[in-house]
Amino acid sequence: MSADTPGRSLGGRFAEATHPVLERINRSVEVDKRLWAQDLRGSAAHARMLAKVGLITADERDALLEGLRAVHEELEQGTFVFLPSDEDIHMAVERRLGERIGEPARKLHTGRSRNDQVLTDVLLWLRDELPGLRGDLVAYVEALVTRAEEGVGTPMPSFTHLQPAQVSSVGQWLCAHAAEVAGHLRRLDHLLERLDACPLGSGASAGGYLPLDRAHTAEALGFARPSLNATQTTGSRIELLDVLGLLTLVGVSLSRLGEELVVFCSPSFGFVALPDRLTTGSSLLPHKRNPDGAELLRSGGKLAAAELAGLASVTAGLVSGYSKDLQGDKALLFAAWDRTRDLLALATVHVDALTWRADRLRAACGPELAALWLADRLVLAGLPFREAHHLVGLAAREGDGDLAEGFRAALAAHATPVPEAQAIAAELAAQTPEGLLAALKTEGSAGPESVRGQIAVLKGIVGR
Amino acid sequence: MSADTPGRSLGGRFAEATHPVLERINRSVEVDKRLWAQDLRGSAAHARMLAKVGLITADERDALLEGLRAVHEELEQGTFVFLPSDEDIHMAVERRLGERIGEPARKLHTGRSRNDQVLTDVLLWLRDELPGLRGDLVAYVEALVTRAEEGVGTPMPSFTHLQPAQVSSVGQWLCAHAAEVAGHLRRLDHLLERLDACPLGSGASAGGYLPLDRAHTAEALGFARPSLNATQTTGSRIELLDVLGLLTLVGVSLSRLGEELVVFCSPSFGFVALPDRLTTGSSLLPHKRNPDGAELLRSGGKLAAAELAGLASVTAGLVSGYSKDLQGDKALLFAAWDRTRDLLALATVHVDALTWRADRLRAACGPELAALWLADRLVLAGLPFREAHHLVGLAAREGDGDLAEGFRAALAAHATPVPEAQAIAAELAAQTPEGLLAALKTEGSAGPESVRGQIAVLKGIVGR
Amino acid sequence: MSADTPGRSLGGRFAEATHPVLERINRSVEVDKRLWAQDLRGSAAHARMLAKVGLITADERDALLEGLRAVHEELEQGTFVFLPSDEDIHMAVERRLGERIGEPARKLHTGRSRNDQVLTDVLLWLRDELPGLRGDLVAYVEALVTRAEEGVGTPMPSFTHLQPAQVSSVGQWLCAHAAEVAGHLRRLDHLLERLDACPLGSGASAGGYLPLDRAHTAEALGFARPSLNATQTTGSRIELLDVLGLLTLVGVSLSRLGEELVVFCSPSFGFVALPDRLTTGSSLLPHKRNPDGAELLRSGGKLAAAELAGLASVTAGLVSGYSKDLQGDKALLFAAWDRTRDLLALATVHVDALTWRADRLRAACGPELAALWLADRLVLAGLPFREAHHLVGLAAREGDGDLAEGFRAALAAHATPVPEAQAIAAELAAQTPEGLLAALKTEGSAGPESVRGQIAVLKGIVGR
Amino acid sequence: MSADTPGRSLGGRFAEATHPVLERINRSVEVDKRLWAQDLRGSAAHARMLAKVGLITADERDALLEGLRAVHEELEQGTFVFLPSDEDIHMAVERRLGERIGEPARKLHTGRSRNDQVLTDVLLWLRDELPGLRGDLVAYVEALVTRAEEGVGTPMPSFTHLQPAQVSSVGQWLCAHAAEVAGHLRRLDHLLERLDACPLGSGASAGGYLPLDRAHTAEALGFARPSLNATQTTGSRIELLDVLGLLTLVGVSLSRLGEELVVFCSPSFGFVALPDRLTTGSSLLPHKRNPDGAELLRSGGKLAAAELAGLASVTAGLVSGYSKDLQGDKALLFAAWDRTRDLLALATVHVDALTWRADRLRAACGPELAALWLADRLVLAGLPFREAHHLVGLAAREGDGDLAEGFRAALAAHATPVPEAQAIAAELAAQTPEGLLAALKTEGSAGPESVRGQIAVLKGIVGR
Repeated sequence: MSADTPGRSLGGRFAEATHPVLERINRSVEVDKRLWAQDLRGSAAHARMLAKVGLITADERDALLEGLRAVHEELEQGTFVFLPSDEDIHMAVERRLGERIGEPARKLHTGRSRNDQVLTDVLLWLRDELPGLRGDLVAYVEALVTRAEEGVGTPMPSFTHLQPAQVSSVGQWLCAHAAEVAGHLRRLDHLLERLDACPLGSGASAGGYLPLDRAHTAEALGFARPSLNATQTTGSRIELLDVLGLLTLVGVSLSRLGEELVVFCSPSFGFVALPDRLTTGSSLLPHKRNPDGAELLRSGGKLAAAELAGLASVTAGLVSGYSKDLQGDKALLFAAWDRTRDLLALATVHVDALTWRADRLRAACGPELAALWLADRLVLAGLPFREAHHLVGLAAREGDGDLAEGFRAALAAHATPVPEAQAIAAELAAQTPEGLLAALKTEGSAGPESVRGQIAVLKGIVGR
Repeated sequence: MSADTPGRSLGGRFAEATHPVLERINRSVEVDKRLWAQDLRGSAAHARMLAKVGLITADERDALLEGLRAVHEELEQGTFVFLPSDEDIHMAVERRLGERIGEPARKLHTGRSRNDQVLTDVLLWLRDELPGLRGDLVAYVEALVTRAEEGVGTPMPSFTHLQPAQVSSVGQWLCAHAAEVAGHLRRLDHLLERLDACPLGSGASAGGYLPLDRAHTAEALGFARPSLNATQTTGSRIELLDVLGLLTLVGVSLSRLGEELVVFCSPSFGFVALPDRLTTGSSLLPHKRNPDGAELLRSGGKLAAAELAGLASVTAGLVSGYSKDLQGDKALLFAAWDRTRDLLALATVHVDALTWRADRLRAACGPELAALWLADRLVLAGLPFREAHHLVGLAAREGDGDLAEGFRAALAAHATPVPEAQAIAAELAAQTPEGLLAALKTEGSAGPESVRGQIAVLKGIVGR
Repeated sequence: MSADTPGRSLGGRFAEATHPVLERINRSVEVDKRLWAQDLRGSAAHARMLAKVGLITADERDALLEGLRAVHEELEQGTFVFLPSDEDIHMAVERRLGERIGEPARKLHTGRSRNDQVLTDVLLWLRDELPGLRGDLVAYVEALVTRAEEGVGTPMPSFTHLQPAQVSSVGQWLCAHAAEVAGHLRRLDHLLERLDACPLGSGASAGGYLPLDRAHTAEALGFARPSLNATQTTGSRIELLDVLGLLTLVGVSLSRLGEELVVFCSPSFGFVALPDRLTTGSSLLPHKRNPDGAELLRSGGKLAAAELAGLASVTAGLVSGYSKDLQGDKALLFAAWDRTRDLLALATVHVDALTWRADRLRAACGPELAALWLADRLVLAGLPFREAHHLVGLAAREGDGDLAEGFRAALAAHATPVPEAQAIAAELAAQTPEGLLAALKTEGSAGPESVRGQIAVLKGIVGR
Repeated sequence: MSADTPGRSLGGRFAEATHPVLERINRSVEVDKRLWAQDLRGSAAHARMLAKVGLITADERDALLEGLRAVHEELEQGTFVFLPSDEDIHMAVERRLGERIGEPARKLHTGRSRNDQVLTDVLLWLRDELPGLRGDLVAYVEALVTRAEEGVGTPMPSFTHLQPAQVSSVGQWLCAHAAEVAGHLRRLDHLLERLDACPLGSGASAGGYLPLDRAHTAEALGFARPSLNATQTTGSRIELLDVLGLLTLVGVSLSRLGEELVVFCSPSFGFVALPDRLTTGSSLLPHKRNPDGAELLRSGGKLAAAELAGLASVTAGLVSGYSKDLQGDKALLFAAWDRTRDLLALATVHVDALTWRADRLRAACGPELAALWLADRLVLAGLPFREAHHLVGLAAREGDGDLAEGFRAALAAHATPVPEAQAIAAELAAQTPEGLLAALKTEGSAGPESVRGQIAVLKGIVGR
């Protein structure tokens, strides 16, 4: 056999080496070498299948498996040397396999293409790694729920429009974050369920002429089935968009935690305190203790959406079949993936470590936060809700912070008698944040019974 | 009861009318009136629940239900008059209900807020409308599969990098699109499964003081359960991001169909022809027949990703609890939703109507498309695949379009004897697109048996 | 002349009416009719040029100009009736012109295409409307500067990481927003300067065969020159991406104002109060006064970035020459444009109306905000800055809020004597927010002299 | 002076080491060390200014300058060792400077913060690097123009909707790309003009108490002036969004070149051929020569828009003053920057190397491409354009590819006599692509004179 053109690994076809600018930009091994373990696993399954259907001998299979094990060891131990000519992890492994075992290595790529191989690698990687991401989500929920148990009875204002809305509790606030993440767990489980079709053996774009047993490979690699259509599977990155969709949603939730921690540990709020280990200093202002971690949650959580938009833009508008454009998928996926896992760790550390300042929380539960209680109380006394709402609105306006006083003024101005007016005014004057919290009745509310119920549900979801 | 401040519908609290600039920008009824049916349905369930728990009487309930029916009729028949002061659909309905039935209308909002109400409306709307979107996806798959059945035996090149790769078939190409959409159906089913928690009764942000029966309302509205945490449910739009994620993926797939139709009906390709009714003219160039529909698929399919990125940016970084920022959700959702359904209809119409030009497709299956067959054939004769690949690469290079001749030259230059060389050369010389198509063996390939199998699977998925 | 095919306005070429699904989705007149005035102006200039070069007679020109004036009147007065068959504003105008003046209308489209016409319309529109946007920006800067003049001497904490950083002033904060907008004015001026090439007469994609005088039309429409290359100009939307880039940046700045107002008018901060007319109520919580306008600034300001990403995705990856994909440009542009102008009006209204609460601002300037002053004072006394920083950091740690006491403790623990230690300690103990503000020296600082200088510069920029 | 807390570089304030998770995620030196040269330059200017205003002695200044030179050498030669505790380039440099020159190093940070320092570094870097980007754009235009000169007379179809529109030329096509890039050069020049304000000396957020001379530093670093407002300048990344806006637009243009090359070198088009060095092989299909470089242009050009959207999302909605969120700016900027420069190099290499296949281009200029010529010819003969358009449309429909024959049929069916009908029919029958090209008259058209004029303008723009 004649030699390849210098500078060409797939070289029968070419009379020139690759242009150095193209070679540099085209080279993806720095990104895709992360898939080495999956690449080797896929190759081993492929080799076994090739032997099963008679395309290689049992000896060749064994040589391949032995060689793949050797390459595995090199990669695991960091002794594998990537060459400048290794365009991607697939070519690097095949090259090294050849150096290790010679001739049989030249049979490994029988019946497959890098197009099916790389997506198989990525799907295997996702199936390997999604449980880790799931574990991060679970750990974060556990941290939230643990802290929520402590905070069931701690009054804290809830906000709408960042204006104090009701007396809520630390437990309710933590459960709110946990409830949102519980939804992500469900999304993740659905997603993992869908990543069940194995591309391997699809070839370059329309299958091949050899009697492969794709079901065998699929099963060996833990998939439910081979992918349905070779053209679709090799030319699409729809699964990765799906994953980035999940990471986008997780990011949005984490970004919100970050914002809240930034706001809540600003001294004007002072709802939470972060320990020194979760704050950083300023190079100029000696007194500063800054919540950099919370800010990184806030900002980092926004980026997966951009990565999703990027991959959507890159893959939309492509003709069927593999195009090089798809190669950009992994850099976007890994960036979003690693950041999400980092941010989940950071979120968990913050939730574990933050100190709730019960005094500040209680002080922020001003008298006006009895407004809904008062309106509901008037409803129970017989007033239509809209009338109660209007009356209490007037009370808030008249009272200018002192709802009880405002209520008396509003009663005086009210055209018709209000049932139980005096009793209600007296109850209002005696209200406390703790009383308002305890009085909450509805399922899902910040009422202690409700929050305890939520905690039980959340524990069930994370299997604790 | 004293009157509201002029220009204020929720006015006990306010001494001034809303600033006209704010009032104009704040008003959302033009967008959210689309939810009127869901809003009324939710209100009816809420009224029934209020009566069940004793917060209103049976007579009040009946008056409310009757009033809601009357408002329903007005809205259905287009006689409902929205007033400039109607900020949103909720306030418009409540206002009109009051005009129709008087006093009981003032009790309807007992125990709920617009914060839980609007998300309930949206989730009800999604649960109502997702089957319609599903139907569009199914209709599109059916169109693809119907045409695929006709095209099982029609050779057509498959491409990678828009370079001819293999002899594939019209059936395989159509099944590729159908297979991707089958994945979207699964995503949609998972999504719908997750939209199972009812926000209604969560109140403004932390629940309320009245003995609501949220499970009753949830069940009446077809949900599996009340949402877990009032703060999370009223302050999040994570479900809408989830929906936009699905629409983003569907859009990417449709955009690719659009691009392919544009390319394939360009005369240089000439693979498909569109009927006059799916082309448009030029105001200047009299001869033009332009594939505007295909271009609208390509471009329209890219926009949901931007809407997702927009809503992610808007909702990330918000403090817990409802913020007005969330109001922008529906404009983004509806824009993406309507466009997606339009594009699905357009895609189906195109698939139904396009004419495959078998002569052009066959002519595009040049001799080089036997390359993989030749390599696989050499493998079956005993050559290691890499050697076969190199030899065929050389053949392609030497043949410059005439693979058979190039193969003879490459054989001559080959250092070692190639088994069955002469027989293979003869087989190669006799190859035809039809022969290459029929010879495809792997599952998922364009081989007729494979494609027929795919069609059966796809029919199963869409329940035909 | 034979009649057009029914349902076809450009119909010689077609034997069928347009498919109703395509016709509906393809129709853009609802969006582009907004360009009617520019379309008519461009047509008038085109007609004059056609007469100048002899392609139409003076009488035909006059008939066209008269007809265009008549159509102008109909459109201006709202009596123009759009027909379902009017695909876009260009066809609608040409159709109506024909109804009004007959034969000469059939000569108007000589030498032009909708491809050059629509971009000419859009560029004219931008040149017409950019001064309005500029006016909004100027009005916003003026509002900020007016308020800044009042607030030069009002202490207010500046923040980094939302932690109090230094004693700053209301004037400095307002000038910060104004300074950012001043940059947008410069961007806008540069942008407008670049929108100076007229596409009209480029034809469909590569020019035409008639002796047009494009320079004449360009000049008549106020452009500096005809666009350079017909293929580029008709097939690109790069100018619109440029405009969306500006709107994205303006949006980011407005979003930040929105966030700050939301945070600053939350009671825990209480830095600013909004009048009733800029707050809204809650349907459930009677006491609420919510800063909806500020939230709409925050959220609305984020959306132009998504529209830019959308148009970038749509236009990237297109082959040269007009494609229908480009038609989506105007919906994105107008959405971003209108929102930006609305938000600027809203921002100005807020800045005009907000009440600074000097007591709360001063109270938020805690003793620790003397930290930088103290470090700088130590530097002036001879300490290296890093040593001063360390010492003051220790003081902040020891003092736990009381910097003066902490400083004494830190001095005691300091290994080497600190020059002027006692004098500095005394000065520190006597410091006030006002004193700290007045002591600021650097250009661009919150020091009163600096802020007055900024105000002068800003007034110069907005020409006041 | 007492020692810093272990694990704390700014440690007077802190009793604990930073949490390892936060430390890892917070560390930005891997990204920002790229700014080392600018950081040192800024520090040198700062040191000189400190000496000028008397805050350090001339000896201290000289020691600092000498130390900075030494650190420069270490960084330039790659001998600088970054420590795990080096959070960013600023702290790393200050740490190393201390090791080299001792005490004076502790005075360098006098009067500045990392907040003003880092933005100064980035702006200096942009001012240093923008000329390089400009050079890439110029080189690309030069390559386009050089090839355009060769292709002035080479007929090639222009397209709209990827349907052949007119006979254009290779020169026109290349000038179209060049004309778009000429616009980017203008954008870049405007942008560079705007990056003229120096943040240095703004301090942390509201200036400082030392008598700095910011104008001196600004001038020394080549800026026109100090930035106006310390709060705005340190807390904004609006300049980086502006840069990303430019890169987004450049990317869109490059993406379009990529798409066209992919389409044009697909064999069905076969308009251009790429040399072996700009194509790559397939691991499975031996015959493939894939245009990977063109695909990387297409896909890579889409990503800057996502990075812009990401940074817009991160910076929108932040309170004034520096927040850690801003730290994510540089990774996004550098990613977009490096990719853009890589893609420009790749684009230039492609334009230099591609072979136009004149035969295929000419063959794609079918008879129908005379349609506009025919319509314009009829106009010159006296027919109103709309009638001419209709008649030629009919001719195209009747001729089904043979326009001359169709024209005869259309004439026969035409109700009224067509002036010069026979002469025109004869001219039409004799038309050639070359004739159609030469007949183009309008400025900006593909006519040879027009294209030569464009080339002259473009050469003027790039100063050749």
